[in-house]
Parts: sequence; C-alpha cells; structure tokens
Amino acid sequence: MPASEGEKIAELAKRRGFFFGAAGAYGGVGGFYTYGPQGASLKRNVEDAWRERFAVQEGNLEIDGPTVMPEPVFEASGHLDGFDDMLVECPGCGESHRADHLIEDSTGIEEAESMPIEEVEALIAEHDLACPNCGTPLKGEAVEEFNLMFETTIGPGSSTPGYLRPETAQGIFVEFPRLKEYARNRLPFGVTQIGRAYRNEISPRKSLVRTREFTQAELEQFVDPERDEPELAAVADIEVRLYPATEQTADDGEIVETTIGAAVEDGVIANAWIGYYLGIAYEWYESVGVDMDRFRFRQHLSGERAHYAADCWDAEAEVDGDWIEIAGFAYRGDYDLSKHAEHADDDFTVFRQYDEPKTVETAVVDPDMSVLGPEFGGAAAGVADALQRLAEREPAAFEGEEVTVEVGDSEYSVPTAVANFRIEEQTESGEHVTPHVVEPSFGVDRTVYTLVAHGMREDEVDGETRTYLDLSPTVAPTDVGVFPLVSNVDYLIEHAETVAADLRGAGFSVAYDDSGSIGRRYRRQDEVGTPFCVTVDRDGLEGDGPDSVTVRERDSAAQVRVPVDDLVSVLLDLRGGVRTFDDVLDEYDAVSTSAEA
Amino acid sequence: MPASEGEKIAELAKRRGFFFGAAGAYGGVGGFYTYGPQGASLKRNVEDAWRERFAVQEGNLEIDGPTVMPEPVFEASGHLDGFDDMLVECPGCGESHRADHLIEDSTGIEEAESMPIEEVEALIAEHDLACPNCGTPLKGEAVEEFNLMFETTIGPGSSTPGYLRPETAQGIFVEFPRLKEYARNRLPFGVTQIGRAYRNEISPRKSLVRTREFTQAELEQFVDPERDEPELAAVADIEVRLYPATEQTADDGEIVETTIGAAVEDGVIANAWIGYYLGIAYEWYESVGVDMDRFRFRQHLSGERAHYAADCWDAEAEVDGDWIEIAGFAYRGDYDLSKHAEHADDDFTVFRQYDEPKTVETAVVDPDMSVLGPEFGGAAAGVADALQRLAEREPAAFEGEEVTVEVGDSEYSVPTAVANFRIEEQTESGEHVTPHVVEPSFGVDRTVYTLVAHGMREDEVDGETRTYLDLSPTVAPTDVGVFPLVSNVDYLIEHAETVAADLRGAGFSVAYDDSGSIGRRYRRQDEVGTPFCVTVDRDGLEGDGPDSVTVRERDSAAQVRVPVDDLVSVLLDLRGGVRTFDDVLDEYDAVSTSAEA
Repeated sequence: MPASEGEKIAELAKRRGFFFGAAGAYGGVGGFYTYGPQGASLKRNVEDAWRERFAVQEGNLEIDGPTVMPEPVFEASGHLDGFDDMLVECPGCGESHRADHLIEDSTGIEEAESMPIEEVEALIAEHDLACPNCGTPLKGEAVEEFNLMFETTIGPGSSTPGYLRPETAQGIFVEFPRLKEYARNRLPFGVTQIGRAYRNEISPRKSLVRTREFTQAELEQFVDPERDEPELAAVADIEVRLYPATEQTADDGEIVETTIGAAVEDGVIANAWIGYYLGIAYEWYESVGVDMDRFRFRQHLSGERAHYAADCWDAEAEVDGDWIEIAGFAYRGDYDLSKHAEHADDDFTVFRQYDEPKTVETAVVDPDMSVLGPEFGGAAAGVADALQRLAEREPAAFEGEEVTVEVGDSEYSVPTAVANFRIEEQTESGEHVTPHVVEPSFGVDRTVYTLVAHGMREDEVDGETRTYLDLSPTVAPTDVGVFPLVSNVDYLIEHAETVAADLRGAGFSVAYDDSGSIGRRYRRQDEVGTPFCVTVDRDGLEGDGPDSVTVRERDSAAQVRVPVDDLVSVLLDLRGGVRTFDDVLDEYDAVSTSAEA
Repeated sequence: MPASEGEKIAELAKRRGFFFGAAGAYGGVGGFYTYGPQGASLKRNVEDAWRERFAVQEGNLEIDGPTVMPEPVFEASGHLDGFDDMLVECPGCGESHRADHLIEDSTGIEEAESMPIEEVEALIAEHDLACPNCGTPLKGEAVEEFNLMFETTIGPGSSTPGYLRPETAQGIFVEFPRLKEYARNRLPFGVTQIGRAYRNEISPRKSLVRTREFTQAELEQFVDPERDEPELAAVADIEVRLYPATEQTADDGEIVETTIGAAVEDGVIANAWIGYYLGIAYEWYESVGVDMDRFRFRQHLSGERAHYAADCWDAEAEVDGDWIEIAGFAYRGDYDLSKHAEHADDDFTVFRQYDEPKTVETAVVDPDMSVLGPEFGGAAAGVADALQRLAEREPAAFEGEEVTVEVGDSEYSVPTAVANFRIEEQTESGEHVTPHVVEPSFGVDRTVYTLVAHGMREDEVDGETRTYLDLSPTVAPTDVGVFPLVSNVDYLIEHAETVAADLRGAGFSVAYDDSGSIGRRYRRQDEVGTPFCVTVDRDGLEGDGPDSVTVRERDSAAQVRVPVDDLVSVLLDLRGGVRTFDDVLDEYDAVSTSAEA
C-alpha cells in the first residue's frame, strides 16, 4: 500500500531536516516540533517573504513583543473566559479528547465546535461514541470547557498569573496608544508582528497543522470606518476561487471563480478591506509556491464567526485530502480596541480632524450661589447641578421667569436670572474615534507544511526514480548547490570552493558538497528543493581556474555550460524569474545529463 | 542635573520606537519589553548579522525548536534542581528581593551569588540590611532558593509539566541524535539557534539587561576533544582586551591588551576553541558597531564557573558606568551530552573512525557444559562465568593442565581442555565518543541595548543641539531616508516617491517622509540612526524627472549632489564600506548644509 501524502511528508521532513517531533529522545510530547536546518531556513524565507509583502511594501510598522503577557490583557480580550475547547475525558483510560472532533469524525456532522455543550453531550450519547484510544463508551460523560491558554506565574509567589499569548495580535492591540504615535496619529496605518503563539490543544494532530506552539504572521490594519478605503483597483482583476457561505449551505453549492473586484461589487465579499487583503494574499501565496489549484478562500458560516466580526474568510490549502486553514481574514470592527479601552488606563482612540472646524452649541448655567446658598442651604449645590442637567436636556425650560428642578423628593424654584442660563459656542477641530480593525492572520508553520506537501514530486531521471521538492526559488532553503564533479581531485575541490565562496559573497545561500557520487549529490539537493546546482568539472578548466561551469536545473535535471564570468548574473536572473532555464539553455550550450550517472 | 545614560536611552527608545516596557496600558509587568518598529528592525538586523557570521560563514547548521519543553529535559540538564536564585521576602511589604544583589549593592562584596545560603543570611544580619522598598530590617528572614524557570502544564490535567526554556541550548542538545545525522556523523560540526528564552527573575532591572523574556543567539560547537582543533591562525592576530581571573583577584590587577594567538599560547585563554570564538566575536562586535573602547572579555572566577566547565569568558560592554555581560563563551566538555545520554533513550555519541582498523585480542572461554554440568550440578553456570572473568583478567591462568576458580566460598578445578580457552582477534573500525561542547552564547537584547547606548551622540548643527544615533549601516533600522525638499510641491513629491521605490527595488530599507520641514525630517532620521538621507530638490530636476539628488551623511550632516544614475551604486558602496563619504565628496559636488534650515 502506498504511504499517504501525510506519511510521505513526515518521512521526508524528518530524514532531510525540515521538521520532526521535538524531544524525541525523551519520547516526545504532542504538538511541539523542531525545525531542522532545511526547515528553519524555509520557514525564515517564508517569514521574510511575508514581511516584504505585508509590512515593507504596504508601508506598515513591524513590532516584536513578548510571548508572556499578564492576565488583565486576556480578561479584556475575552480569551480568559471564551478561549475554550470542549473536552471529554475517557473514564476507562483517562485520555482526553476534543468532544466536537469525536462527533465530526464519527458522524459526518460539521461545525460541532459551535454547538452548545448540552447538544454535544446529547450527540455523544445518541451516536454511542466511544474512546478512540480504548473503546470505552463515552455516553454520559461530562463535556467540559477547557481553556487553551498555557498559564504560568510571573515572579515569585502566585499573585501574578501570566499566559503564553494565544495570538500575536493582542501584543499589537495593547500597545495601540503608543503605536499610534509612531504612526503620527494618522489613520489608516497597519502594524505587523511575526512570532510565536501558543494553544494548549487537547489533542494535537496532523503534524504542523494543529500544534501547541506555532508561528503567526499577523497584520492589524487600523482604519477609520467612515473615511478610509483600500486601493481596491490594485487587486480588482486578480482571479480567485471563492467558497462563500451561501454555497457551503446550498445543496448544489460549488466553488465560485471570480475576480476580487467583482466579488466585492456583488457583495460576495462583504467588505472592501477584506477583498483587498484576499487579493494581496492570493498573489503572495502564488509567489511563494502554493499550488493554486489546491487553494481556495472559504467564507465563515455565521456560526463560526465571532459575534463582532462583520465578515471572515479563511485561506485554505488542500493537503492529503483535507482542506486546512492556512490564514484568516476578519473584519473585527472596533471590538478589540474598545475592549482594551474599557479595561485599561489609556487612550485607544485616534483624533479625527474635521475637514472644517465645527461650531457646537452647548447650554450652560452659572447660578449665582450668593443667592442659592442663603435660600436653599445644604441643598444649594444639588440645585445648581440639577439646573445644569436641565439646561442640557431642555434649554426651553429657561425661557420663562422662573425655572423649577427636583432634587431628591423636593422641588426648588429659581428665578431664571439667578440661573444665568446661556448658550455657548465652542469650536471643535475634530473628534476621537476608535479605529476599526482588519486582520489578516497567517499561520507560518501551516504555510511551510503546504509548501512541502505541494512541492513533493516523483519522476524518472537516468532510468531511476527520483524524489524532488519543487520549492520556489523565493523560499527554497538553499539557492544553489556547488560541487566539484569528482571528490578526489584536489584542484577541482579548490576551484569549487572558490566558486562557492564567490556565490556566497554575491548573497546566495550555498550548499557546498564534495562527498559521494555527483548523482547522489544532485539527489540530495533535489530532495531539499535546491533550485540550481553548479558543478566544476575538468571540461570547464582553463589555465589557473575554471572558465566555465555547468548549471543544472532541479525540475528538468537539464544542464547548461555557463562561463564563470556570467554565473552570478545568470543565477540572479533565474532566482528572480527574470530568465527561465529555457532562456539560459538557448543562450549557452546544453550539457548531456549522462553526467549524473 | 543631567539625566543618566540609562535614562536617556529609555527616553529615546520609547519616544522613537526602539523599545519600551510591555503592556503599559495595564500598568506593565516587570521584565517584559516590546520592540517598536525601529527596535524590531535593529534587533532583526543584529540577528541576521549574527547568523551570517556564526552560522553561514562558519558552515554551521541552524535549527528552530519550541520554547516549551517537557520536564525530563530539565531534569537531565540540571535546571530543575540547580537553576535558582536566592530570594528573601520582606516581612513588612511582602516584596521579594534577590538576596545576593542586596548584599552586593550595600556592602561592596562581590560574587555573593556563589555563596552558600547560610553565609548570605549571616551577611544580611551582620550588615543590618533592610528592604529597599519599605525599610523593614531583613535580619533573621529566611533566604530561599527560587527556581527561575517559568512552569506551565502541557495538555489537560496536571500530569505533564512543561517549562519555558531557560536557554535555547537545550533545544539543540536534546536533538543531537538527529542533528548528527544531518551533519553526516562527522565531527566537528556546529548547530546554532536564535530564539526566545525565559528566566523568571526575582527583580528584573536595568531595562533590556535583566528581563524575564529575551532572545538568545547560541552556537553549540561539537568537537572531538582528541582530534579537532580550531583554525586559530585565522584569528591569532586579533588584538583584544582581556580581564583574566588572575588580574581580577590581584591587588593591582588590570586589563591585559594582547592578541588571541598570544593569549592562547600563554595559557591566559585555556582552550584554543574558546580563543577562536573570542576572536570571531571581537571582530563581529566591532562590525555591528559596539564601541570597542567600552568592551572587554572577562574570564570567570573559579567560583562563577560551573564545575564541568574548563574555561569561561564573558564579553562585557560598559553602559552607564556598569559592565554588562553581553555574551558568554564556555568550554563545557561532555557534560551536556553525557547528561542527556544518561536520562534519555537515544545515542548521544558519534562514531569515531580509526585511521587504521584496529585488531583487538580478547580472551574467551567456551566451557564444555556436558562435562561441567554432571560434575558441578547447580554450580556449573557459576563456574562457567567465573572462568570467563578469569580469562579476561589473567589469561596466563589457562597455561597449565588445570585451572581453578572460586564461586562463593567454594573452589572448583577444571581441566584446561574442558574450559576451551582461546584468544580471539576482532577488528574494530572505530569507537563511540561523546563530543565535547564549546558554547558561544549571545544576548541579542543586550547587544541591541549596547548599540543604542554606544551610539548616542550630541553635537551642534546649524547652531542647534542635535541628537543622533551612530548606528552601523550593517544594523541601522533604515538604510536611507528619502524626501522631497519641500512637502507642498506635487511633482517633487512624485519624483521623491519614485526614487524611494527604486531604492526599495534595489534592496534598501527606505523611510519616505514628506511631512514637516526638511530640517525636522533629517533630525527624525538622525535620531533613529539612518546613515544616509536622499533629498529630491528643484536644483536636481532636468526634463521629466530628477537628474541628481542630494545625499546627506548622518554623522557629519554633510551633503553631496549625486547623479540619479549613480545613486544605487554610491549608496551600496557607502553601506558596504567600499567608499567613505569623503570619497563621495571628492568625486561629486558638496552642497551647502544651510539647506537644513
């Protein structure tokens, strides 16, 4: 039986140093992964590509905050109360399971996550669900909310609880009062953060897809809901595959192929900012090498969506037969900043300048206390306050000779002249608004997983089966492999080392290798997705050093002889997509691939 | 009174977006910092420069592991038992203090950290130390060991404790069995990791110097202690300032100015690998902009050093009158891998191939049990074992007709022929060795702090006091500022935006700014350490676009007019140190700096 795609990924990832379960020497612990040398490089390249597109090119600010945050932050954000999964513990073996997953896996019911606990318990009973580990029936077992935040204690004693952040976003929201100053108090502006986040999953699974520690790349775009519009024209023509909520619930629902512009215009995408970022994201995923035939944007169903979110979409990639969420795009309104403004002691608004200063009329009283005091004694101050409230509520009450107010159970009448009622005009240059938040949130690990899954290829070279990884030159862990053709000729080794050093100096990430047959060295680079290999052979020598070298493309295994003087510019063009390998083959001499034997 | 250097750093860092105490809107919590846009960029550039030097150029492997690790890892590493600070709690206000710091701060005694608890309690009593917070005497209060690891729980229930790693190093050690495969089982090889680490400090202090969450850049160099030598010649001539243990304890001890080569030869640096990395580190710190007049390497005193460490040095930088540790270099022997080999179920050795296969002679017996059995009954097996032990210990005993062994209290004699004694020859191609570890460990945050501190400058420009940050172009958050000279002329703005986009395309990090006076925009970039600013003015226009622009150097505030066509190459050369600004001034026309007004 052939291994599943998931098993093949796990095997390759471990053997070639992409990623593997952490602390395996100690039996491991679920949901924690270590990136080996190839994976660490691939992941960093994905992060750098994201930063370039979503921070640098968009002109956004990037910050880097702590992963441990104090409790009040999560009281405000709602994570302390609501960031739960449903847990059921097996009375037989003691293993904990996610109750909603048990139902979804066994019954075909979807969205069990958004059901009330009682319904979940009822479904477990109704379908006679049993522990997947030991088979003990779970009917009648209590389903409980389990908070997914890792808790710890800051400092000595237990008085200061802290939590590992469940998302990088809160680190941006809590610093908004300061960040708006760096943005010079002008909307719109965006703030990004790339970093670790943590969810204490009940049952981690599917390799990098559901882990307990992961890396997010998040962008919080702060906008003035009345004034700011995205540059939709820049993405309007991008063709995307959408799976709207209406299609998901329809009997004959299907993927909609459309453009961002049309989808926003037709209201399929409810918010222009979301549309803008779906467009940017689509192009970005394509640029880093996601197979766009195995990619879609899926809209959240109303039950999935947080109550404050106006519109939510996920980017999904198909891996091993499942659609996995690799990014989320939410229009969160003013929920986040309002919540922090309620709980914290700082200003989470931005001052919105009016186009023209506005004149505002305010009713005020300035009662003559030298009259009220003797008249009303201890009640005088209360009467003055009541007059001010009345003035604001009902200015017309001051039109007669006398004005009457109630304080407690008593009525007090005051001559209007003593109240000193007047209308004051104030000029206001603007007002304080709480910005709305548009949040594109990317899972870095899941992107890495998708790239490895979508890149795995098998073909035949020189009559032998070859496995290679079709990674985009933008993110491949290594740009170029450099080898001497044979590993036992000192001057070839020396020349190859010089070529490697020169390429490193030109900014390429280089893998130098002089061990084993040339064919084996090519295969090793093929398997880790190195797009090009350069080989120094005798044919290319001239005088004291190499005059030309061969350049081999990973996917076609085709080779071309390139003059050493052109090597850097050829590789730069190939990496940057300025020239294709066919262009290079046209320009220089092809080499017979029998050299791989 | 002028603000201290520390206060000036804090003020600039917060105002300009380098770093500030996290979650300030919630009152903050000690020891956690957020990097703003400038700081996040500076920190990332420091990390990238470290990676380039210590991972890429050294040919080491970089990994990226989880920050949460299970308990058995820290049982093995010793952190669970020994990673403690001494805590004394004030009976008056309840505040916790580090007992050793109280003593050091109040008495001038050094190294209180390495004293036994009883001695620390005695010193508190003897010196009548009081709570720095409320003044309550601490005499008689118990001093306790407080473990500095943040603890949490993995998964539901409390059965799986986890800890936030106190150093990135353990993430490398535990994966050694796998990492050695990626290194193809050949020593020496090095593995690096850059990432968060955590120490639950009793009293965090000094800004980024003693925080509870921080970033480390660590290299674990695995070596064969008998065979591997560093390339000391590459660093032998580097001149360094050393503060050896002997000088620290001498009455007239002083800094020794010497070379790495001489220090290793004279035994001042006890280990050649440590010498090698001190040399590399010295050059690296210089390259990123540490003021080497405020830098030294200090050797650990014997009391500071872990028992297994053969030699330890710290890199120290002077900030605000204090020497702060910014890196540590330790020769750790086989301690780490041996400990994990004891506790974990995996192979932490490397197979060392002999130069020539060795023939090993082993004495074996193969007693004829059909004789021993009837003869000795139940004692027969014991007799056979005793014969084997005797053969290994004393082969000559088998030279006579009969051989005698003791089992328990009885003697047994066996005809030598029955014992079947012989010498076997075995060919062994190598042996398993536990690699030794050389560990250069860098504090990234402390390096950032040092760069800001050492870079702060004040001078006078156009008759006004100017503050600027002298950051190296290698690590400055922004490479170049781009401005239109005035902010109200549309075509200047357009041209400046084009120049900015072109420079971004050429790989520069660019800050575009068209708000406020040109002088103010220069000052803003000066304060965040941007080395160069490019201004588009009317004088440089020609036809449809700019023909030339001015380039201004931060430190001198001098300006030069450069043709637009030369701009990228001039800036590349300036950033790379290929040309100085004086070279550029010689080549092109200087511009009067009155333009800054």
